[in-house]
Amino acid sequence: MSWDQIRQTPLKRIPTPGGDVMHGVKHVDLSLSGFGEAYFSWVNPGAVKAWKFHERMTLNLIVPIGMVRFVFYLPSCGHRVYEIGDENYARLTVPPEIWFGFQGRSKVPSLVLNIADIQHDPGEVRRRDIKEIPYIWGPL
Amino acid sequence: MSWDQIRQTPLKRIPTPGGDVMHGVKHVDLSLSGFGEAYFSWVNPGAVKAWKFHERMTLNLIVPIGMVRFVFYLPSCGHRVYEIGDENYARLTVPPEIWFGFQGRSKVPSLVLNIADIQHDPGEVRRRDIKEIPYIWGPL
Repeated sequence: MSWDQIRQTPLKRIPTPGGDVMHGVKHVDLSLSGFGEAYFSWVNPGAVKAWKFHERMTLNLIVPIGMVRFVFYLPSCGHRVYEIGDENYARLTVPPEIWFGFQGRSKVPSLVLNIADIQHDPGEVRRRDIKEIPYIWGPL
Repeated sequence: MSWDQIRQTPLKRIPTPGGDVMHGVKHVDLSLSGFGEAYFSWVNPGAVKAWKFHERMTLNLIVPIGMVRFVFYLPSCGHRVYEIGDENYARLTVPPEIWFGFQGRSKVPSLVLNIADIQHDPGEVRRRDIKEIPYIWGPL
């Protein structure tokens, strides 16, 4: 694993009468890994969900509402931080084998869509308590 | 085409510290048709987007925020109406070759996620003006 395997791809927001259309993921974007499952996670303002590690799942993360800070951690390299959402509408593609956590950075609840290449399988997820990997999340 | 090809599937909402997790679509749900593209459409309160007809696309519609009325029209059968969203969290699976329109039925903008089995292709979409198919959408 190295940082350059995390990719941030800007996504289009298309003004449409009655409400915008916003791009997400196309089949061609998923390359070899394919489609496993799409699910949503709400993140309340300031709330932190950390830490998780997927042994096999590649994530495609999109935040259609709010702003979310994603923090990645590699023991050999330290942390790397991305913020996506309303003010930076983009997709984050995250390979397996990296620790990550995320925080709601908006005054309203934020919504994360994950389009993953495998279906949810608790056997491939490792978890650590928020205190086990040092990072100062800070208030909103 | 017949009405029984439209399927409404209840989806789970899993209470989680920091914000709920909400199911969407798994690979197994898509059966033979597979994954083509995922994109969002906002629908403002009371706004109507109508009418559209897909020659090839199967839709999987999920409304994580707000409430949306979907109206389907078959010339031989008339209309059929579904409402999904916050108060009825479910997935609507819609085969091709049916006219449809939708309306935001919540006081806040509603968000529709469509997980489609093909990528967007303007050549397979037909459109009609809202007045060309009779239906009384009504105010909010």
